Amino acid sequence: MNHRMIVYLTGQIVRVIGVLLILPMIVAGVCGEKASLIAFFATAAGMIALGTAVTFKKPENKAVYAREGMAVVAISWILMSVLGALPFFISGEIPNFADAVFETASGFTTTGSTILNDIEAMSRSCLFWRAFTHFIGGMGVLMFMLMIMPQTDTRTMHLVRAEAPGPTAGKLVAKMSLSVRILYAIYLTLTFAETLLLLVGGMPFFDAITTAFSTAGTGGFSIRAGSIADYHSAYVDFIVTLFMGLFSLNFTIYFLIISGKVKQALANEELRTFVGIVAAAIVLITVDITHIYGNFLTALRYAGFQVLTIISTAGFATADFTEWPYFSQIILLTLMFVGGCAGSTGGGLKVIRVLVLFKSAVKEVRGTLSPRSVMVVKCDGRALEKEVVHGIAYYFVVFNIILVASILMLAMDGHDVPTTVTAVITCLNNVGPGISEVGPSGNFAGFSEWAKILLAFDMLLGRLEIYPMLVLLTLRKKY
Amino acid sequence: MNHRMIVYLTGQIVRVIGVLLILPMIVAGVCGEKASLIAFFATAAGMIALGTAVTFKKPENKAVYAREGMAVVAISWILMSVLGALPFFISGEIPNFADAVFETASGFTTTGSTILNDIEAMSRSCLFWRAFTHFIGGMGVLMFMLMIMPQTDTRTMHLVRAEAPGPTAGKLVAKMSLSVRILYAIYLTLTFAETLLLLVGGMPFFDAITTAFSTAGTGGFSIRAGSIADYHSAYVDFIVTLFMGLFSLNFTIYFLIISGKVKQALANEELRTFVGIVAAAIVLITVDITHIYGNFLTALRYAGFQVLTIISTAGFATADFTEWPYFSQIILLTLMFVGGCAGSTGGGLKVIRVLVLFKSAVKEVRGTLSPRSVMVVKCDGRALEKEVVHGIAYYFVVFNIILVASILMLAMDGHDVPTTVTAVITCLNNVGPGISEVGPSGNFAGFSEWAKILLAFDMLLGRLEIYPMLVLLTLRKKY
Repeated sequence: MNHRMIVYLTGQIVRVIGVLLILPMIVAGVCGEKASLIAFFATAAGMIALGTAVTFKKPENKAVYAREGMAVVAISWILMSVLGALPFFISGEIPNFADAVFETASGFTTTGSTILNDIEAMSRSCLFWRAFTHFIGGMGVLMFMLMIMPQTDTRTMHLVRAEAPGPTAGKLVAKMSLSVRILYAIYLTLTFAETLLLLVGGMPFFDAITTAFSTAGTGGFSIRAGSIADYHSAYVDFIVTLFMGLFSLNFTIYFLIISGKVKQALANEELRTFVGIVAAAIVLITVDITHIYGNFLTALRYAGFQVLTIISTAGFATADFTEWPYFSQIILLTLMFVGGCAGSTGGGLKVIRVLVLFKSAVKEVRGTLSPRSVMVVKCDGRALEKEVVHGIAYYFVVFNIILVASILMLAMDGHDVPTTVTAVITCLNNVGPGISEVGPSGNFAGFSEWAKILLAFDMLLGRLEIYPMLVLLTLRKKY
Repeated sequence: MNHRMIVYLTGQIVRVIGVLLILPMIVAGVCGEKASLIAFFATAAGMIALGTAVTFKKPENKAVYAREGMAVVAISWILMSVLGALPFFISGEIPNFADAVFETASGFTTTGSTILNDIEAMSRSCLFWRAFTHFIGGMGVLMFMLMIMPQTDTRTMHLVRAEAPGPTAGKLVAKMSLSVRILYAIYLTLTFAETLLLLVGGMPFFDAITTAFSTAGTGGFSIRAGSIADYHSAYVDFIVTLFMGLFSLNFTIYFLIISGKVKQALANEELRTFVGIVAAAIVLITVDITHIYGNFLTALRYAGFQVLTIISTAGFATADFTEWPYFSQIILLTLMFVGGCAGSTGGGLKVIRVLVLFKSAVKEVRGTLSPRSVMVVKCDGRALEKEVVHGIAYYFVVFNIILVASILMLAMDGHDVPTTVTAVITCLNNVGPGISEVGPSGNFAGFSEWAKILLAFDMLLGRLEIYPMLVLLTLRKKY
């Protein structure tokens, strides 16, 4: 392991976050929030100083391979969650540090679970920081760093691979560093478009920008106690629903559309599967809840929003689905595991993994029933490599082992079975709400400190797709 | 597919079950239960006649390969569940036919879930038949048929493989047909020993034999409304706990011990894992519930019983664990998936699969973190074949797809989330009780007819380990 390079790159990220903290600091200044202003200034100054100190001297050996990439990602995301919690803690907005770390990890990992009982009591700048962590975490902080500080292409590749969601990190163009910039441009454009459309609908500017940040990262933090429901607007519901869907798609789709390859973009199997699952879920839930809302269209509005908020893993709310019929609840619980497409900002297992798992299950059954048949798993018309298919199956196994282990550990905190089980499911999949105590109108304040840290760790495992976090266990090993 | 041979072998099994029905018929006669006597006589006569009719002419082509083996097992288990339900239905003891099929499938698959609200109102002969289905299903009806009607060795192998639990069906001795007889001898000896020990403890003969049948198959049907708790005896609790453990072990272990290879038997990795999991679960739950029972030993008694009743997938009850702390409940829910060892009468995924899944997850993580390392999954000191390891991983994937699909379907019946989820878990793993409505003091009467048939199908999928049931979808195909 190239330890010096790991420290150097991590230092750069700490500095980048320090610089980004200037934005909420400005908000604090504008709104005249003194305690928050001091907290953001102190944290920003400290992080910039720390980052500069460790990056002062460039390491001679600049080699970065897969393991270094994973180590950088894991360490920097943990640091971000701990250091990024300081403004909440120093300002006194979140007086308990474990709570602050939970909230920050929930922000960066775009989970959106909260420990706050009274969201609207928080300062504007802290509310801005909460939403902004979603925006930073959605696309990935390393992606951001790579956009502003060019690295060599192989180094970029290993860093992007470690942070990017989904089983494969594809390049859009031959140069990885250029790909990163195109992706970020798409991200910014979509976020800008949503902000604009929300403003058109009459939403105040501060609400529009924070909602767009949260949607972009498919995070789910809202600045209102009642989340999106508080705007009482079918238009706002529609815009947010639409953009939760758009941010759940593989960004490669947009690049193909821009490049004029619309046909190829629409033929994408993962896209079609995602649309199919979403459509089926919306229809089933709409039928199931029409009697509650009195008419089909209102039911469709709420069903559409809740399906997309769960499958995109955003976690906004316009209705408390734990009061819906059990059939709808179980559909939503199932969607938590699916998540968005690979290469989107959505969490969960990712649609491509679910698709490949399903196809390989069919293949396995057929193979067992007629051993002579030789079959391969195909996606987008091409046969997938055996290693990729097996890799996805074992990712699923590892994911389930972590799921069960986390549930068993969290059970020691003494909450009821649905709360314990869905708290882990929602954190590991970066969704936000669960059922029972942690339902859409509840929160995570009831857990003890160690349980919050455990859940924060699950969020990081989920966002970084497990392996980077596990590389930390082998940091001292030489290979 | 050799359709004629499938019909021939299935006919033999129908006839065997018909002959076995003479036993509960005798019980009906002795107890003077007229309605039941007629019902058992009619069903037995019908099945023997039907079986004899289709086996009158032996097929010329006697070839039986893997697919024929699976088809015979699947068809005969479905027939057993439907025809075996007739005595309950004809006698009027279970007036609804869907209920009767659920109860019979639950019996043969050794699940032990019941739709009966008042167990003790049932006739003695029907209670006997319930327990006896556990005994027949535990070891497998094909195993029984093969023991009494010798077939060629290759044919025997394919039939045993399709019905035997666990990823591999090992031979004890070179001749498969002899292995089958040795296994059945062990099964009968253990059942006899338990009956004897229960009689020594003062249990009435009828109770002792039915309890032993239920334990042997790790089924869980009891003739008392309060299950084993109704005997109010620490001795009975201990004996049943002990035998639930013994019937959860791979019967090969006993063969090794009889053959004097005690060291080899005790070195078995699956055995050690099973003992380790059981010991850990008992200690954790005992500590968790000591405050309820006042002292450590009483807590140990109830914890030990409940851990073994769940992991062995028997499903007897001496306490309502849904009233225990949530930590204990979640441990028990986790154990439902583990189940007994391969080659035992226990259900679940089987300890060997859990062990291999865990080892291959560790291997996968290591491989991802340092791609240069080449590693294999070892068990009992020998490297497992790649196909076996992958097969277990994909079995887990297929199992989960069926689990989720069943939960989504059952959700349409409108029961609360814990009931719906754990009903499927407990049926698919052949355990018996779940939580909420289907907890140890509840039952499955609240489900609608189609839901009961769905759950009965899940029991069959679980008992036969999925693939044989799926072969039915390809019956008409020629390969």
